[in-house]
Amino acid sequence: MKIVVVGSVAAGTSAAAKARRNDESARITVYERDHDISYSGCGLPYFVGGEVETIDELTPRDAAWFKARYDVEVRTGHEVTDVDVTTRTVTVRDLATGSTFEDPYDELVLATGVRSVVPPLAGVDLPGVFTVRSPSDARAIRGWIEQRKARRAVVVGAGYIGLEMTEQLTERGIAVTVVEALEHAMPRMDADMSARVDAELRRNDVDLRLATRVSAIEGDHDGVTGVRVGSPEDGETVAADLVIMSVGVRPNLELATQAGVTIGPTHAIAVDRQGRTDVPHVWAVGDVAESFNLITGEPAWVPLGSTANKMGRITGDAITGGTLEHRGILGTSIVRVFDLGVAQTGLTEDQARAAGYDVEVLHNIKPDRPEYLGGKPLVIKAVADRATGRLLGAQAIGASGADKRIDVLATAITYGADVADLFHLDLAYSPTYATTKDPVHYTGMALDNAIRGTAPLITPAELDRRRADGEKIQVVDVRSAKDRAKGVVAGSVHLPLKELRARAGELDRDVLVVTYCNKGVTGNAGQNLLRNLGFAQVYNLSGGNQNYQAWAAAQRLGRS
Amino acid sequence: MKIVVVGSVAAGTSAAAKARRNDESARITVYERDHDISYSGCGLPYFVGGEVETIDELTPRDAAWFKARYDVEVRTGHEVTDVDVTTRTVTVRDLATGSTFEDPYDELVLATGVRSVVPPLAGVDLPGVFTVRSPSDARAIRGWIEQRKARRAVVVGAGYIGLEMTEQLTERGIAVTVVEALEHAMPRMDADMSARVDAELRRNDVDLRLATRVSAIEGDHDGVTGVRVGSPEDGETVAADLVIMSVGVRPNLELATQAGVTIGPTHAIAVDRQGRTDVPHVWAVGDVAESFNLITGEPAWVPLGSTANKMGRITGDAITGGTLEHRGILGTSIVRVFDLGVAQTGLTEDQARAAGYDVEVLHNIKPDRPEYLGGKPLVIKAVADRATGRLLGAQAIGASGADKRIDVLATAITYGADVADLFHLDLAYSPTYATTKDPVHYTGMALDNAIRGTAPLITPAELDRRRADGEKIQVVDVRSAKDRAKGVVAGSVHLPLKELRARAGELDRDVLVVTYCNKGVTGNAGQNLLRNLGFAQVYNLSGGNQNYQAWAAAQRLGRS
Repeated sequence: MKIVVVGSVAAGTSAAAKARRNDESARITVYERDHDISYSGCGLPYFVGGEVETIDELTPRDAAWFKARYDVEVRTGHEVTDVDVTTRTVTVRDLATGSTFEDPYDELVLATGVRSVVPPLAGVDLPGVFTVRSPSDARAIRGWIEQRKARRAVVVGAGYIGLEMTEQLTERGIAVTVVEALEHAMPRMDADMSARVDAELRRNDVDLRLATRVSAIEGDHDGVTGVRVGSPEDGETVAADLVIMSVGVRPNLELATQAGVTIGPTHAIAVDRQGRTDVPHVWAVGDVAESFNLITGEPAWVPLGSTANKMGRITGDAITGGTLEHRGILGTSIVRVFDLGVAQTGLTEDQARAAGYDVEVLHNIKPDRPEYLGGKPLVIKAVADRATGRLLGAQAIGASGADKRIDVLATAITYGADVADLFHLDLAYSPTYATTKDPVHYTGMALDNAIRGTAPLITPAELDRRRADGEKIQVVDVRSAKDRAKGVVAGSVHLPLKELRARAGELDRDVLVVTYCNKGVTGNAGQNLLRNLGFAQVYNLSGGNQNYQAWAAAQRLGRS
Repeated sequence: MKIVVVGSVAAGTSAAAKARRNDESARITVYERDHDISYSGCGLPYFVGGEVETIDELTPRDAAWFKARYDVEVRTGHEVTDVDVTTRTVTVRDLATGSTFEDPYDELVLATGVRSVVPPLAGVDLPGVFTVRSPSDARAIRGWIEQRKARRAVVVGAGYIGLEMTEQLTERGIAVTVVEALEHAMPRMDADMSARVDAELRRNDVDLRLATRVSAIEGDHDGVTGVRVGSPEDGETVAADLVIMSVGVRPNLELATQAGVTIGPTHAIAVDRQGRTDVPHVWAVGDVAESFNLITGEPAWVPLGSTANKMGRITGDAITGGTLEHRGILGTSIVRVFDLGVAQTGLTEDQARAAGYDVEVLHNIKPDRPEYLGGKPLVIKAVADRATGRLLGAQAIGASGADKRIDVLATAITYGADVADLFHLDLAYSPTYATTKDPVHYTGMALDNAIRGTAPLITPAELDRRRADGEKIQVVDVRSAKDRAKGVVAGSVHLPLKELRARAGELDRDVLVVTYCNKGVTGNAGQNLLRNLGFAQVYNLSGGNQNYQAWAAAQRLGRS
């Protein structure tokens, strides 16, 4: 059997290695257009920033290593230009010599990955404008910074790569302006969570321009000098001696199209659970291929190294007779943004609503470990299905422990966890690592109480919507006078918890009440008290005033 | 309804608070012998060490807080001395005045916790000898250290508290000798893992005396001067101006015995899944009560704050008509020992074998995140059931990320995970937090391959046992000559991976082969190669030479 793999970053090499482990006799060739193989694309920003000293650390394996270890031929500097699926032959161009040759295959694996989207802007080809995909890109950026002694950068696009580059350039002492067309950094998250990322960027002196478009890049043959943002009429030029274009990536579909394989609704290659396309003997793995959502079963495309590795291994196994099958993704991901871990898994509130779920939403704000040992606030937004109690997704932001909680919740979601399950998880407790009841436990308890109706929750967005619809709502601030001075929910009355029992008569029992405090705990106590006093409908404001203010900040920007 | 709770640390106050949340009208009284309530016992060592500045940080809530928040009467300095289950009455002594009174109950909750075991040694009552249970203990120890300018301490017992105290005393600049009767620190873990804790203690200049008994404590009315260790004949005296007794804890069963409730096989109070004892209207929660193992269903007693909190909440709910039920424990726990996190969940290898499982055992040694971003080795020992593929338990030791992996594995075990499931988990990847394939993924892949027979594993202990039984085994070191110089498995031959294909003829195909490298990965490559060349039985040594050396160190001590 002869296996030809096109592309050698994560998925391609995983497929080749797994195929070899299963089958000693197969001939396996990997073609790679670029010079580097099997590199850590996700590590590139840290080479630019200097946290990683040499690029070799990100490219530990070369063709010789693969040959020696797996008896796999990796041919770099070779581009597969054509595929003939009837004769099962690829045409390959040796980029060094320009010569082409044909190579037959029994099984063809497309691992062609993605390219960076470069919008057709004036000046986008100027020296000093970069994308961040390959080690060559990273070397070029670092070289440019050092040679030009770059002081000011503009990063266009505030997704993962944009944020990582922003952090790393800032760490190098470069003043960074981030330009994002959407209303928040990290647009994959719900706005009330993304707003917290916006705040962290600004806290680190990043000049963050949201809901802002780039109209042109300015400069001359010597290099970029600035980025024109805003509308052509009343825009402005942000000075820059370095521009990072990180507006997104797009699958490299040329070969797939030529092979005639079906492209799925996410605009990546449609494959079955083992990576088969609908053309015989043609497989697709990694960022170029479509995955599916573990919860909804719907096609999903979230290009991440972790998923690419899995897909490669599964297809390498399947080609050689194995039975591994892809079980779907949750889009679990994390990015470090200065002092915060920003992570998510499963469906966001927006995605869950779009998928038709009637959702319960909680913002749990608790320290990741006791404050007496330096614990910092960790915000977990969790989304559950009211009809079944099933946990649908979570987003977490905090100085530490966001990764742990998201991985635990991702594991629970994988097994179809009911929110009531979370409290029962036997998690590792010591005050050096967690609180006695872990934030995961609190998240489950609060969502369970909300869904069972013993402690209903309302989000700032829902409160706003219902008031805008003309519904009469009594919003009750149960905090102390000192806390109330920190900022309030618009239109709230002040009945501190200590006085609430005595002064409950000031409220109308037949009108909806929403209690709130700083983060939600005392608000819940007030809610309990009023319910026990016979109030018919009492909601607790999810995440309290702290979350309300984050939501309000997100709203102000959305409306501006 | 009148609820009386005896004990107010973790479980007692949880039960009272949950009961109140469910039932506004119940009368709830908590009796507490001590002064402090609802404190963080697990935080005490960090107050002694100074990481926590004031004891108030560990005792954030007092009786007045509980009264105001939950309308719960907490009466400190009151000891419940008698219980009459026929009249449903407790007798209470006011420790300040010495007067006693009777208090009737409808439901009685025993949350009497544990006491420190103090062995009947000469000198154990000397000034300067302490146990670590309560804030008073911690205050006394810190006071003693400061007043006496203590320079040398002996810690007797190397379980959680002993190790935490050792770390914290060392951090204060006190020279610590640890005396442990068993063969390793952290005796709850398997010896090959505990040995790694031993090494970390010694690396931090702790004088660790294993398999050593204390025969007396020396000193006079002015205070302790030393600890006599070893046999009375050839023992020695370790000088000390401070002694911590941390040899274990034991349930406070006096009231339970008087009430006539059944004590379970673990010597804690037997309860059902809601905390009911077998005496009507008497419940038991927290460290004084028995739990059960989630995997085996057998009674289990692992006194931990996390479990105590759960049990309290469940019983508080049940008493007031709720339906919460305890789902069992995995004994998940973690302790920080200097630069290492030391964690475990589920069954150890020893426990699994004792429970009758035919176990597959893996030692996975991989960085917790890429080495190019500072990743350090994380050792995960995982145990699975060969018959079903079910994951039974895991132990993890590493500079960072041990807590995360143990929590993920605990969650997976809770849902009955097959080891083959782990590879499919969609965990959060970024090189700042994890490797592309997470250590959890590798753990699952290797165990799955071992159980399915494609890459069988053998532990150092099993290799040793089989060789001791006279079985002929060819142990093949597939490392480079440079690596081989680091230390070898006894009786191994050297066939580097690069030469293995060519030199395989030097091995006998019909005799069992065990391949090994440093940590296991290259050993697995050698194993694959030999199997593909037609060798019938090839095992890979679990965790490679690194794990073999840890095991050998554990053995040497065990035999000394």
